[in-house]
Amino acid sequence: MAAPFIRPVPKPMQSEQKNFDLILFGATGDLSMRKLLPALYDAHAAGRLHPKGRILGASRSRLTRGQFLAKAAAEARPHTAATPAEWDAFCQRIDYLPLDIGNPQDFAALAAEIRGKADSESIVFYLSAAPQFFVPACRSLAAHGLNGANTRVVLEKPLGTDLESCRLINDGVAQYFQERQILRIDHYLGKNGLHNLLALRFGNSLFEPLWNNRHIRSVQITLAETLGVEARGEFYNGIGALRDMVQNHIMQILCLTAMERPQSLDADALRDAKLQLIRDLLPLDPAADAVFGQYTFSDGLKGYTQEHKVPPESRTETYAALRAFIGNPRWAGVPFYLRTGKRLSRRAAEIVIAFKPPADTLFPAALPNRLVISLQADDETLHLRLNVKTPDGAQNTAPAELGFDTRPGRRPSAYETLLLEALAGRAALFNRRDELEAAWAWLAPALEALRQNPPHPYPAGSTGPAAANSLPAAGDAWFEGI
Amino acid sequence: MAAPFIRPVPKPMQSEQKNFDLILFGATGDLSMRKLLPALYDAHAAGRLHPKGRILGASRSRLTRGQFLAKAAAEARPHTAATPAEWDAFCQRIDYLPLDIGNPQDFAALAAEIRGKADSESIVFYLSAAPQFFVPACRSLAAHGLNGANTRVVLEKPLGTDLESCRLINDGVAQYFQERQILRIDHYLGKNGLHNLLALRFGNSLFEPLWNNRHIRSVQITLAETLGVEARGEFYNGIGALRDMVQNHIMQILCLTAMERPQSLDADALRDAKLQLIRDLLPLDPAADAVFGQYTFSDGLKGYTQEHKVPPESRTETYAALRAFIGNPRWAGVPFYLRTGKRLSRRAAEIVIAFKPPADTLFPAALPNRLVISLQADDETLHLRLNVKTPDGAQNTAPAELGFDTRPGRRPSAYETLLLEALAGRAALFNRRDELEAAWAWLAPALEALRQNPPHPYPAGSTGPAAANSLPAAGDAWFEGI
Repeated sequence: MAAPFIRPVPKPMQSEQKNFDLILFGATGDLSMRKLLPALYDAHAAGRLHPKGRILGASRSRLTRGQFLAKAAAEARPHTAATPAEWDAFCQRIDYLPLDIGNPQDFAALAAEIRGKADSESIVFYLSAAPQFFVPACRSLAAHGLNGANTRVVLEKPLGTDLESCRLINDGVAQYFQERQILRIDHYLGKNGLHNLLALRFGNSLFEPLWNNRHIRSVQITLAETLGVEARGEFYNGIGALRDMVQNHIMQILCLTAMERPQSLDADALRDAKLQLIRDLLPLDPAADAVFGQYTFSDGLKGYTQEHKVPPESRTETYAALRAFIGNPRWAGVPFYLRTGKRLSRRAAEIVIAFKPPADTLFPAALPNRLVISLQADDETLHLRLNVKTPDGAQNTAPAELGFDTRPGRRPSAYETLLLEALAGRAALFNRRDELEAAWAWLAPALEALRQNPPHPYPAGSTGPAAANSLPAAGDAWFEGI
Repeated sequence: MAAPFIRPVPKPMQSEQKNFDLILFGATGDLSMRKLLPALYDAHAAGRLHPKGRILGASRSRLTRGQFLAKAAAEARPHTAATPAEWDAFCQRIDYLPLDIGNPQDFAALAAEIRGKADSESIVFYLSAAPQFFVPACRSLAAHGLNGANTRVVLEKPLGTDLESCRLINDGVAQYFQERQILRIDHYLGKNGLHNLLALRFGNSLFEPLWNNRHIRSVQITLAETLGVEARGEFYNGIGALRDMVQNHIMQILCLTAMERPQSLDADALRDAKLQLIRDLLPLDPAADAVFGQYTFSDGLKGYTQEHKVPPESRTETYAALRAFIGNPRWAGVPFYLRTGKRLSRRAAEIVIAFKPPADTLFPAALPNRLVISLQADDETLHLRLNVKTPDGAQNTAPAELGFDTRPGRRPSAYETLLLEALAGRAALFNRRDELEAAWAWLAPALEALRQNPPHPYPAGSTGPAAANSLPAAGDAWFEGI
């Protein structure tokens, strides 16, 4: 068999080198240590950070800079390929400031610190904090004049728990920052696999003519984990799968998969196209189109209600499956099956495009074509199922999977990509207020159904609740791997 | 990079095991020794021949069976993987009969020999002989009653040198055999890569919607050799590239690439579709749409007129390039560039489908998609050029080639496939009279142009005459490899 191959044309790295001040609120937290500082190191090591750019860690912990760097060396460096010497060189960029978001006085010190670095072209406040701190933090930043044209504020999810709470945060933040300065992060939008979906659709002439209800039978989007809630039970119990995964990640994947062509890849054009798609979704009828589940003890794996700090009577859903329809000419009648869950039988982040069967009888063994786009950081691949001729008999075919890796070369993490976008002041890969609110509005009936009905139990390590098998139409089925 | 992969579903070999008598006229010839006997051995070794099926070599050489088998062991066995013992076991099937096609008496002995094997369900006469012997051979076969319902006659190319001579042969043969008994062979129709083209088009829902002038810009078909005429100069000089390659192989590839969907894969349905395509070709204007060439001495490689037994004043073309248009709704306006030649810079048997550029500006670096289907026995592959996202910059893409081998498993040669089809009495992979005559008719202006104009010289080992570069439209160019 001839080896398939990819021949990327080398492209120079785009220069993102604005001189910057990046202030990490919650700098001693888990996200900062596991994701943000490692991503910043990687950008640094790849020469993608301005040489004079500064990272200013801020947290309530009242550490010294030395203590903060010691913590980062212990907790962040292991998530990089840095040698101790390389890490130390990176740490030249890092300062530390004790800061309590609830304490307005601490912002005076922050303002002084930032004014001390007068040459920053870009100032980014990354709020890795609980959502109730977003508005107070923005208010205090503004009170010290830290909301000028060259500032951005990055808001980590969850941005509320429903439409109303999301609006409250957005309204509050909007008092101090303009929409273009507010970068609502969804790290899936930093995934190259999703960017590649746009390139596939709009940078090739092959797919867009097929990307509609004349040629596509159904679409599945699955974000599945094999892990349970682990140590995050207390946090997760107030959230659940619908808010943790569907409202943000799955909705964004759905948008990029199904939206009309954006007029450009600029922030507003891209987000206008996503918003339009969400608005084109038909109203959810949860009785017919939603199934929720909660994992139960199985084969030595704890059930959800046995997890650390989860109340035994919890009705929080650890699995959610929806069937969505889009009421526009392109997609009318095509079911979009959306699914996420914890403690499932396999780990996946994937889009499955099921094409209609060939309307033909010449090759009766031919299976419907199928494109599987995997978005996992460690499995960023395309697989296209084609029917090819076998050498025996005129009409015999066998399915073959054309597979290839979509991401040759170095792999920036989603957070690296998004941090660089934020430092460059670009909003295209962040969520605009109206799309998030539209997503919450569309999901409102599902949230209401959750309040009223307990989730279906499913065995830990299984493919989810049996009830979810009623969502796919006859001839469709949940995709469980190639 | 994740390894791409193919997962064929194993299929049982189709049983073709009619008890047969296969009579090879010209059994001591080059084709018989290098292709036919090895193909028959391969079919035998794969269990695809009826255990009692017999191969009867016939030639003017007046050998004994032992002499014939000795010649076959020396000349045919090296083209197989057979051990001497395996070859000897195969030879149990082989008999020999001295036979001069010009001598009607010899056919009495042949008839007696065939009657001696009374249980044959299928009797195939394979005429590996010069075309002037076809009609006399058929007449003599019929005179001895060897043209019954279970007989077939296989005619090797060339079947004439123009429309008139082809008609004469067809008329002559038709006096003794019915059209369904006459199997005009073109070994390209035995190539799995061409069968796969049909499976791609009609056994998948992805391609047919794109297979038209809205999505395809141009199509190229190239059969290129690096060899010169070698020892065949005397034969080749009376033929030339147009008759040797274009009228048969290239026309057949063109038909399978561009024809409408046949109603079935049965012989007449398939050949009706091919015939319709040839009839839809717009008339050739050789002054604008044809370039002929002849290779000249270069870099130590002999020129054509210096080859063994080629007259120094020869104007025979060793290169032919045509631009064809198809006057039907599917293909109106799409140029089909057809090309073949000897002593070119690379060896190729390929179809190149050039898709239109994405009608889009979102990804400005995107190249037009392109599907390259290679038909070489040792390179039976597809390569699909897609644009994929590079991790740098929102709009940056790089071309990637999705490649895969279309033919997992054992590879029957084109001749093995066609011989088994002939033994099974199926005509679908052989040419019908009307398609061949339509191809000759379409090529008549090119044949006339050849008579009137000397070919353009091109250096041996080059890509052909420079004049051929005027055929592709602006933006198209001859494909010279990935």
